[in-house]
Amino acid sequence: MVNEAMYARGAESSVIREIFSYANERKAQVGAEHVFDFSLGNPSVPAPDAVRASIERSLTLPPEVLHGYTPAPGMPEARQAVADSLNRRFGTSYGMADIFMTVGAAASVSCALHAVACPGEEVIVIAPYFPEYRVWIETAGATCVEVPADPQTFQIDVEAVAAAITPRTAAVIIDSPNNPTGVVYTRENLEALARVLDEANAGRAAARENQQPIALISDEPYREITYGAEVPWVPSIYEYTAVCYSYSKSLSLPGERIGWVLVPQASAWGRRVMCAVAGAARCLGFVCAPALFQRVVIDCVDVPSDVEAYARNRDVLCGALKRFGYSYVEPDGAFYLWVRSPDPDAEAFCERARAFELLPVPSNSFGAEGWLRVGYCVAAEVIEGSLPAWEQLAREYGLQAE
Amino acid sequence: MVNEAMYARGAESSVIREIFSYANERKAQVGAEHVFDFSLGNPSVPAPDAVRASIERSLTLPPEVLHGYTPAPGMPEARQAVADSLNRRFGTSYGMADIFMTVGAAASVSCALHAVACPGEEVIVIAPYFPEYRVWIETAGATCVEVPADPQTFQIDVEAVAAAITPRTAAVIIDSPNNPTGVVYTRENLEALARVLDEANAGRAAARENQQPIALISDEPYREITYGAEVPWVPSIYEYTAVCYSYSKSLSLPGERIGWVLVPQASAWGRRVMCAVAGAARCLGFVCAPALFQRVVIDCVDVPSDVEAYARNRDVLCGALKRFGYSYVEPDGAFYLWVRSPDPDAEAFCERARAFELLPVPSNSFGAEGWLRVGYCVAAEVIEGSLPAWEQLAREYGLQAE
Repeated sequence: MVNEAMYARGAESSVIREIFSYANERKAQVGAEHVFDFSLGNPSVPAPDAVRASIERSLTLPPEVLHGYTPAPGMPEARQAVADSLNRRFGTSYGMADIFMTVGAAASVSCALHAVACPGEEVIVIAPYFPEYRVWIETAGATCVEVPADPQTFQIDVEAVAAAITPRTAAVIIDSPNNPTGVVYTRENLEALARVLDEANAGRAAARENQQPIALISDEPYREITYGAEVPWVPSIYEYTAVCYSYSKSLSLPGERIGWVLVPQASAWGRRVMCAVAGAARCLGFVCAPALFQRVVIDCVDVPSDVEAYARNRDVLCGALKRFGYSYVEPDGAFYLWVRSPDPDAEAFCERARAFELLPVPSNSFGAEGWLRVGYCVAAEVIEGSLPAWEQLAREYGLQAE
Repeated sequence: MVNEAMYARGAESSVIREIFSYANERKAQVGAEHVFDFSLGNPSVPAPDAVRASIERSLTLPPEVLHGYTPAPGMPEARQAVADSLNRRFGTSYGMADIFMTVGAAASVSCALHAVACPGEEVIVIAPYFPEYRVWIETAGATCVEVPADPQTFQIDVEAVAAAITPRTAAVIIDSPNNPTGVVYTRENLEALARVLDEANAGRAAARENQQPIALISDEPYREITYGAEVPWVPSIYEYTAVCYSYSKSLSLPGERIGWVLVPQASAWGRRVMCAVAGAARCLGFVCAPALFQRVVIDCVDVPSDVEAYARNRDVLCGALKRFGYSYVEPDGAFYLWVRSPDPDAEAFCERARAFELLPVPSNSFGAEGWLRVGYCVAAEVIEGSLPAWEQLAREYGLQAE
């Protein structure tokens, strides 16, 4: 037949993609330099030269070696390189068994969710949140439970998480540096979350109702994109953590689909979950991560991300918006600015901004009302060019300029 | 919690992978030249030079263009190149809208199954069959219904398919050239299948119970690996067909995960199914096919597959096994020989063959008893070196040599 649930997911428009398409139309009509597209999270910084050098080196290998199937969890050398890099940075002692190479961040989260959640269970997300989390949670047959972040700081509201936990809670997904707010969760915030989860786990053990701990899925595609803040290593704070990673942002390789899931193998829980991650990858049809880019990971695992351009964009944009009277959340990482919409109806503001060819994303699709996501992974000229429009809109909405 | 279904899929051993691991152990112990590993379908023919040339050309592009996200259905140029190539070969008139680029054959079949089957429905496979079909069918929530092929020719037993159709039948999966038998379904056989499906659809329409036609999923990773037989273009024979393709075998790129699904957009059915394919790709976590290899497809879509080496292996292996008294199915395509096990218990034969370091795959995991799959995508020396073992085993089992 035709699967109506899948049809609906294919037919429903992603607001972000829709704005991106509209931007491209307008660029064709009025010239690219007159359109200020802040919709997508496509890195504007090119992949480092080391990526090209790695690919060129790989091309000297026999093609049947280079392009052959890798083991399902990935090439041993790639998994070991990732583990070694983490150990150097976080004082951990991982081995290749702790790492499962994936077809990018979406595959990492999808496989991790299928591994730790069962149909009928619940997965908590911290709103605002990346909209695809809901899609993947529901595909795994679970229910997406939104818990709003602290409305001032956009840190995790730990008490609200505690209140949302039920016997059916399978996992909590966090995402730091955060998309869409740019916030990095502090160590104190994560430790408080860990205490809440540990207490819930202890309660379960005592009640003998549900002996399984709550999994923490830490989705970290923006880990390397920070402006000075510490991004704590979550498995060192909470035992039952699976880390989902991708090189889409850190090495600017979003089209190549390469990432990993880490599940620490020190515990029986970790060994069971990693086996379920492998099962999920198999069941969903992943086979193995792209072989050539597994070799890129081996060669480039310690190549630093180039955040200079994002940092400059951030400073210019924040400085100007502050002057014009906008309020926003100070971004510690990622390349998104979370701006309070001058209109309580963020969609109405975005509609009005279109007259100025200014294209942020309204917050509704992230599970929050009255905010704008401004993706500043764009050319510096886009930031500069957009400022008169931001200023004029501020004036129209009567914002108090500094 | 831990999803037990996913855990089980991760924990269960693939017989093929197990034999492959055993082969590698033995090679380390007794020397690679003394082990005759016929387990895997990993192409022994290297990717053509055109692949390397394409990658080198792509490396001259700006990295943010080369490695950026592509649209979810793929780069328009890649989709158009595939459509144009099919039109030249099959007299069709496809456009880019008929093609959805995927992360390899497994993704193609997984997405197609999720698009056309709903939980509680049934999907028919022709036994023997590629074992992962069952995994993907069950992940989509459907039931895998095995219909044995004709026991002499291993063509589709069309009457048996007709008998297996119920109101819950969502789809039939076929795979020609076939893994594991090497058989290519004839045009007559496919036309007979189409008649059966059309009749079932007409019956449904008349009964007004289930207005949806039965989908035919034609999985064709081996389309290019043939030895003279015609491989008919299935959508020209049966309207409600989705073709699943990959470049793993035709261009020897199994590790790079690149393929496509074709669903003809001429009908409302096709448009609905393609939208559901896009929804499935999104729900399962695929995002887009690897960008660099989408460009390889643009450049190499018409590069012929190098079947010379497989043809030589096939001739040597078939000639020798016939002389020793084995019977087998004449292979028209793919790189598998389907040999009648001299022992009715194929696993017992394989156990005995291990004493000679001879490693075929017993038929059980393909849904058939008493056969062996011999993957001849290996170096010519492996074939030559294995012949004394085949001969000795034939003698021990009392086969009548020619």
